[in-house]
Amino acid sequence: MNPGDRVRVERAAAAAEGADDAPTYEGILLPSTTATEVVVKLDGGYNVGIDREGSDVDVLEEGVFEVGESESDDASTVEFDDDLPTVALISTGGTIASTVDYRTGAVTAQFDAEDVLRAVPDLAGRANYRGRVVANILSENMTPDVWQDLARAVRAEVEAGADGVVVMHGTDTMQYTASALSFMLDTPVPVVFTGSQRSADRPSSDNVMNAVCAVEAAKSDCVEVMVCMHATESDDRCALHRGTRVRKNHTSRRDAFETVGAEPLGTVDYSGIDDESVAVSFRRPHVERDERVLALRDDLETDVELLKFVPGMDPQFLDVLEGKAGVVLEGTGLGHVHTDFVERIEELVEDGTTVVMTSQCIEGRVCDRVYDTGRDLLDAGVVEGEDTLPETALVKLMWVLANEDDPETAMGRPLAGELTERSVPWT
Amino acid sequence: MNPGDRVRVERAAAAAEGADDAPTYEGILLPSTTATEVVVKLDGGYNVGIDREGSDVDVLEEGVFEVGESESDDASTVEFDDDLPTVALISTGGTIASTVDYRTGAVTAQFDAEDVLRAVPDLAGRANYRGRVVANILSENMTPDVWQDLARAVRAEVEAGADGVVVMHGTDTMQYTASALSFMLDTPVPVVFTGSQRSADRPSSDNVMNAVCAVEAAKSDCVEVMVCMHATESDDRCALHRGTRVRKNHTSRRDAFETVGAEPLGTVDYSGIDDESVAVSFRRPHVERDERVLALRDDLETDVELLKFVPGMDPQFLDVLEGKAGVVLEGTGLGHVHTDFVERIEELVEDGTTVVMTSQCIEGRVCDRVYDTGRDLLDAGVVEGEDTLPETALVKLMWVLANEDDPETAMGRPLAGELTERSVPWT
Repeated sequence: MNPGDRVRVERAAAAAEGADDAPTYEGILLPSTTATEVVVKLDGGYNVGIDREGSDVDVLEEGVFEVGESESDDASTVEFDDDLPTVALISTGGTIASTVDYRTGAVTAQFDAEDVLRAVPDLAGRANYRGRVVANILSENMTPDVWQDLARAVRAEVEAGADGVVVMHGTDTMQYTASALSFMLDTPVPVVFTGSQRSADRPSSDNVMNAVCAVEAAKSDCVEVMVCMHATESDDRCALHRGTRVRKNHTSRRDAFETVGAEPLGTVDYSGIDDESVAVSFRRPHVERDERVLALRDDLETDVELLKFVPGMDPQFLDVLEGKAGVVLEGTGLGHVHTDFVERIEELVEDGTTVVMTSQCIEGRVCDRVYDTGRDLLDAGVVEGEDTLPETALVKLMWVLANEDDPETAMGRPLAGELTERSVPWT
Repeated sequence: MNPGDRVRVERAAAAAEGADDAPTYEGILLPSTTATEVVVKLDGGYNVGIDREGSDVDVLEEGVFEVGESESDDASTVEFDDDLPTVALISTGGTIASTVDYRTGAVTAQFDAEDVLRAVPDLAGRANYRGRVVANILSENMTPDVWQDLARAVRAEVEAGADGVVVMHGTDTMQYTASALSFMLDTPVPVVFTGSQRSADRPSSDNVMNAVCAVEAAKSDCVEVMVCMHATESDDRCALHRGTRVRKNHTSRRDAFETVGAEPLGTVDYSGIDDESVAVSFRRPHVERDERVLALRDDLETDVELLKFVPGMDPQFLDVLEGKAGVVLEGTGLGHVHTDFVERIEELVEDGTTVVMTSQCIEGRVCDRVYDTGRDLLDAGVVEGEDTLPETALVKLMWVLANEDDPETAMGRPLAGELTERSVPWT
């Protein structure tokens, strides 16, 4: 048997033990198969690893897919359609990528239109596709250097002529990565993150609808970094969230992603998805095509931490912050910490650390001018993050410290829709 | 002039500088007045500190209030009404307490019915009142030992015959304290936390309505630890939240408090507040009067920390956790951290630390059996916090480690409504 073969794997050991329901798996053998494990891409698109020991593998059909160096010049069988826009799909890993990126277990740098359409046939006829793999990691393992690789990959795809970019990303840290690209990139085309809360082998999977809606959003006129995920628990529409205002607010629901403190930028109506003219609609002001020239500022100061304050907290956590370039505090209420912490925070500021206050309330604006503790924090040199989300403030501070001459002032100004300026003074 | 006098303070210095609107303040002089500052309780109930320099103070009426040892046996002029229940008001500080606790600047251990009715006349005729001061601190300065003092004070009031207890508390950490009392107390009467998001001198203050609704809830049949705060931005009703499921989800809105993952226990209709029979209503099952006997288990293991995981995080934070009795992790998604952290977490568990996983998504249930990282964490001995809020899990772990023989099992069981058991297995 060889990678690319269609196989059936039977857990003979389990059958021998008398189990009536000994599991069998049918799908395409993947190159990541090892001496101890076979990895099979199920027809639903999900990968499973199965112990070789105690398993019988039958090859049903050889060489269903050609596996190897994807840099080979095998011409794609999918013809380029001059009348359609070109959408670049960039994979970073995660549940949705396991559907589209057939070679997920292998080391490849590209996939092509044929791979895309094989995985999600519903994408056919909507765009010409280009594919690129930036990483193949679970999103909890995402790091700032991958954000940078991804931003450069988006730039490369735009320079190569993509009319829109879809980034496939695990949902756990999607909001952090979307924030990072929002600050690093001035993009003249839509950059749309999408993912999947349920894997493709489950009947409730959201991956096809999310992928289709993301491609439609990538063809739209809104040239922002957005997140496209289910707007409701039904398969009726996706919401388009600004990358710096979105938050994963539920562990498992398909509509886990929400825009915090505002309405989403727009929606993609999936029921009307065949009528391209009405599928994507925007309710809020946004930057449009031709209003922006491609630019990338991808420096990041990664010596930045986020610390959530809770009652009874060990002050030793502050020791870890000594000498850091930046710190985002997630305080209580309007932006408070225990009074005993204020002096230590003042010392951090005096030592050159930029300290930004956000709130664990998630919604609403930090305001440290109302109560004593807040005023003491301002006197100590703490910068208010206004209504920036704590997670976004962390990413913004990494970017601002590497790209702005006056980081303190920059943290109080909107750079990528992450902050709304106070309309009336607090009275 | 003496504390207790009614005074008018004029900022003459400002007037001399030609300011047309030189501020004047009228109210009761407080004992916390110092050599450099006079502190006045304004008629709205809010305290202001004013520089003595450049201020003219006129005494309008001497000795309006008697200030001093409140332990004095001055008989209250408010008569006890046998037909009304008795509600104990316990003050811990915060915006709402500054209204009711007239002697906020002084060191007193009690206040009486007269003080209560002077501050919030709308409370008259609803109950007989007893008053007790447990602390006078901003709630960001709240610590586990004050939670214990408060729990003991509630027990004392119940033993002294209170038919219900209202706890006045700053809003910043109210949810942590309400959780603590939920675990520590078996209460045969309602214990109702309330607070104020806007101080009493602002026209939009929520303190009167919240205090009235809290007293009505304290007279109700629901003997749980609850939080009573505005249910909407209007003055129409308060929501009654279970103490272990409530979260301050907005920095400044009057309806900042929400029950997460469920409907509130009930509501207090403020528009119909005069009709006692309809004012308080409950929608969800709860423990009723006579179903429970008073008990207090107030031990806490305070060597417990909460740590929020974010991408790019310095692993040095894990050093602080070494040797701790307990750790609550706020992971991503279904309950994940970077793979590189798993081994360190396993070492913590092996050293005897109880490690509990919760999710920064806030809503939804942790489930570490779906993805590799989660399974690795379970193998490492991490306990799933199910759908317990991270902040509540922190408090629960402090309590469980001091009171339960098998903390790991206890963290997966509901003890005070903080956790709903999985109805169907994850598939």
